[in-house]
Amino acid sequence: MKTQVCIIGAGPAGLLLGHLLRAEGVDCIVLERRSPEYVLGRIRAGVLEKVTVSLMERLGLDGRLQAEGLPHDGFNLADGERLIRIDIAELTGGKQVVVYGQTELTRDLMDASEERGLEVVYGVDDVTLHDVEGDAPYVTYVKDGAQQRVDCRFIAGCDGFHGPSRKAVPASVGQEYEREYPFGWLGILADVPPCNHELIYANHQRGFALASMRSHTRSRYYIDVPLTEKLEDWPDDRIWDELAIRLGPEAAANITRGPSIEKSIAPLRSFVFAPMRHGSLLLCGDSAHIVPPTGAKGLNLAASDVHYAAEALIGFFKQNDNDAVALYSDKALSRVWKSERFSWSLTKLMHRFPEDGPFERAMQVAELDYIASSRAAQTSIAENYVGLPV
Amino acid sequence: MKTQVCIIGAGPAGLLLGHLLRAEGVDCIVLERRSPEYVLGRIRAGVLEKVTVSLMERLGLDGRLQAEGLPHDGFNLADGERLIRIDIAELTGGKQVVVYGQTELTRDLMDASEERGLEVVYGVDDVTLHDVEGDAPYVTYVKDGAQQRVDCRFIAGCDGFHGPSRKAVPASVGQEYEREYPFGWLGILADVPPCNHELIYANHQRGFALASMRSHTRSRYYIDVPLTEKLEDWPDDRIWDELAIRLGPEAAANITRGPSIEKSIAPLRSFVFAPMRHGSLLLCGDSAHIVPPTGAKGLNLAASDVHYAAEALIGFFKQNDNDAVALYSDKALSRVWKSERFSWSLTKLMHRFPEDGPFERAMQVAELDYIASSRAAQTSIAENYVGLPV
Repeated sequence: MKTQVCIIGAGPAGLLLGHLLRAEGVDCIVLERRSPEYVLGRIRAGVLEKVTVSLMERLGLDGRLQAEGLPHDGFNLADGERLIRIDIAELTGGKQVVVYGQTELTRDLMDASEERGLEVVYGVDDVTLHDVEGDAPYVTYVKDGAQQRVDCRFIAGCDGFHGPSRKAVPASVGQEYEREYPFGWLGILADVPPCNHELIYANHQRGFALASMRSHTRSRYYIDVPLTEKLEDWPDDRIWDELAIRLGPEAAANITRGPSIEKSIAPLRSFVFAPMRHGSLLLCGDSAHIVPPTGAKGLNLAASDVHYAAEALIGFFKQNDNDAVALYSDKALSRVWKSERFSWSLTKLMHRFPEDGPFERAMQVAELDYIASSRAAQTSIAENYVGLPV
Repeated sequence: MKTQVCIIGAGPAGLLLGHLLRAEGVDCIVLERRSPEYVLGRIRAGVLEKVTVSLMERLGLDGRLQAEGLPHDGFNLADGERLIRIDIAELTGGKQVVVYGQTELTRDLMDASEERGLEVVYGVDDVTLHDVEGDAPYVTYVKDGAQQRVDCRFIAGCDGFHGPSRKAVPASVGQEYEREYPFGWLGILADVPPCNHELIYANHQRGFALASMRSHTRSRYYIDVPLTEKLEDWPDDRIWDELAIRLGPEAAANITRGPSIEKSIAPLRSFVFAPMRHGSLLLCGDSAHIVPPTGAKGLNLAASDVHYAAEALIGFFKQNDNDAVALYSDKALSRVWKSERFSWSLTKLMHRFPEDGPFERAMQVAELDYIASSRAAQTSIAENYVGLPV
């Protein structure tokens, strides 16, 4: 097989990039290790920044997102007692975020693949990148027992943290920046109405909690737990009890309990790999960086990478602009680092760390007090939350 | 002796409070362990917030400050290469800070003591507080070998971190919040023109540096060093060499070297003692809290404590308002915590910590990048730098 861009990974980053290239007449193929059902079964973030919504609009694939997505004008920080509302629309000149599950967005992109002729090959094994440093890279994989080869001009690595793409960059070239956190998020998904029409991030004496949602009838809640905790020790009722304490009395009064549809413990990690381009390989999304979920930047950062990558690749194939590809890593990383900073700082503000003593706890309370009293501090949070300019 | 308020400590906090009380006809006496010369020999901060300038204005003691102080409209953050200017006047609706040495301010307050009849007793030993929980506390001390006693209604503890006042609060009542930092500031004072007309705080790969000043002809510079460093290992030239590297090429080109007038290594500490009132004892300034010097909040925080303490004591004696004293601790602490937070966060942003790895360093760079690009972030820094509302 021969194509212009071989995209590895059919999560939202890979599919978005595929559709954007197809729409401009750039040939591409998307390779995905898993089945479509598996990809759709992954529960991920659900808060979309403007950059993500805009890409769906540009593709004309925003119909369901506009119909079913919930635009949010604000969100709340809580310290166990009060709610500090961050009025993002008022503070950013009318910007919003849209609550719409990553799963739904992926489904929209998947559904459009066939009618738009975006070729996605699912269930491929042993994906291997070759000659990425030169102008004629290729990708091999095994499908239904047969070895296949895709020759291309560029490879886009949209295959997540554990995929093969990043590993194709020699260790002498790339630098890893990493921080692990001493807790994970225990999440519960349930078909119950949310306790509040906007998200609540709480830093309670007992730990972090997040009240989130996917729709008016589906709620997503989290609490942080030590990484040593086991899911079987957290029956639904124990989670609901803990949420009611940590979210504070106002939110607790409005929690509707229900059986969990999904329940999991996810570790938190900050990770950046630089550069994000090596030769003819461009890394997008989780293959190059991970943020802790606080602030919901993961999917949106993948979308901004895809924005820059599409711009670079379309520039290359359609405008004979070789520089665009050379600039990709710096452009993408500039935004990545800022989002990493925001996710890290919001994580530090809203979680209790085992190494923190009374002074550090007092600093969290003081920062929440300061935020509650300062328009500048609220504006800074709001502009990061809606997404810094692309 | 009998007075209404016995003030312990004749640093700027004690003298400011004494003058404010005298001006309203509240009787007081100030006790100071050291000599006037010793007090004036202490080199301290030199950046005054509005709250501090306003108190001097209110006392009519701002003549020299207005004539010799240098109003600053901005300051700079540096990362070893570029300068990020924080235009505090533009960002805060015209507010400024004034560069005027703490020593000079103390001298103005001292010089006015005699003519205004503020009694200050220097060289007192063995200052001891008695019966602070009741309505008739008293203070004993030894002067010229003779034991003395001051009976009063209130005691104001303005005697710094090591003074006896805080120790008069039982351990069962007070809580200490503390953080020590793994470095100190090596300071050099020299009669040379400053390298820049505004302050520069630098976070260089090699460590922190601060270019500050006392006047157009007297400069104050700092670098951070491990606490194990000894002053004798830092001859002047080594300090000038290090400053030239850390402050970056632009500032380095303008450094004028000269012999040190004063040189010292000061440890950095964050400390808060709460509550700030116990019975008839009110703590002001360093006796209740210490901030790291980053951002120059120490003296200004003492001034805002004094503002609240004077308000409370004048309310008590002149308006029969008992509640004012009861509210003192909460009012003062609310501002203290916010200043502690700012000093701590600016210290964390601008210093290299031994425990930090490449990710944490990248977060500092990302935060400086974000600040450079965001008016909201700059406004937040500026409003803290000029001082939050009293």
